[in-house]
Amino acid sequence: MPKQVDHRERRETIARALWRVVERHGVAQATLREVAREAGLSHGSLQHYFASREAMLSFAMDFASEQTALRVGRRLAELGEHPHPRDVLRAMLAETLPLHPDARANSRMSAAYVLEALHDEEVHARARSGLLQGREAVERLVRQAIADGHIAPDRDPAIETDLLLALTGFTTLLELRVVTPEAALAAVDRHLDGLFEGGSPCS
Amino acid sequence: MPKQVDHRERRETIARALWRVVERHGVAQATLREVAREAGLSHGSLQHYFASREAMLSFAMDFASEQTALRVGRRLAELGEHPHPRDVLRAMLAETLPLHPDARANSRMSAAYVLEALHDEEVHARARSGLLQGREAVERLVRQAIADGHIAPDRDPAIETDLLLALTGFTTLLELRVVTPEAALAAVDRHLDGLFEGGSPCS
Repeated sequence: MPKQVDHRERRETIARALWRVVERHGVAQATLREVAREAGLSHGSLQHYFASREAMLSFAMDFASEQTALRVGRRLAELGEHPHPRDVLRAMLAETLPLHPDARANSRMSAAYVLEALHDEEVHARARSGLLQGREAVERLVRQAIADGHIAPDRDPAIETDLLLALTGFTTLLELRVVTPEAALAAVDRHLDGLFEGGSPCS
Repeated sequence: MPKQVDHRERRETIARALWRVVERHGVAQATLREVAREAGLSHGSLQHYFASREAMLSFAMDFASEQTALRVGRRLAELGEHPHPRDVLRAMLAETLPLHPDARANSRMSAAYVLEALHDEEVHARARSGLLQGREAVERLVRQAIADGHIAPDRDPAIETDLLLALTGFTTLLELRVVTPEAALAAVDRHLDGLFEGGSPCS
């Protein structure tokens, strides 16, 4: 196995160990020492892969986002070549919300990361840039759906984009079992129904 | 000053010191020792008011929620005796989102508290019960607005309630400056317009 691949795999193994520590004990306990123990590595060996706790957290966050993107990609592939924008948005939202264990790992990492961002400028900048990228992708999709007549032309694309992003607010409601996964999906569907009602696609 | 009042005041002073520590360094740093330092108290003196870190966090969270409820109450008082349910919901959402420093203290405490809840059953139960109470209040309001004809009768009150609660998802977008306060309020207004459109009040 080429060394580069081995290095990447080892970093992913460490990231998963970090997720488990965050899941069980919270981000405050996710020190290099604690994660090394969880990953079955020596502290020194872990430092070969991550020079600092921040570097480890950032990688684990990026890795979680990548895994979410992969899950969304797999869902979109199932939708065929020209998926309806409503189905694309639903797939993105459904995989971002903590509706199953893999998605929960990502949403917990995000929550921990956002909290770190509030008092760490570097984490803030990284988290912000990730979210802005996601926001741009959603706004592009909304604008295209308006251009294609799927969404009524009098809708404001920026406002509709922000409302779609705000639906990630279901994360807390799901984590604290204030709503069930079924209720969250029903609400997402209701919101998408409202967004796409009044559209008159050309094709 | 009666001893009871003094005790309560001192606990509130400590809660505010905790907010500042959470704001500056994150919830992980909010130990009894650190908060005592911030409040200008000895560690032993602080323990007279809070036996454990959890007790201190819970009180600080409850106190933040109370302060938010007070701010909402003041806003509602300005709306007169029979406020429109749209204005009531807008006031609740506007004071819950981190749009100004006082509201930010509450939203940061909530975020920290939710993260603690993920790996602490007692905190989970308390946070959940607080959110369920808030959810009930909103659903009561939505059901009344449907009964009064302000919201169309074909709307599902439970789903609409969940969507309103999910708008707290703007918290993260605001904290990371992915949306501006103006954009968040515009989106809240757009959502409320959609909720109340098609209503035909009897009076």
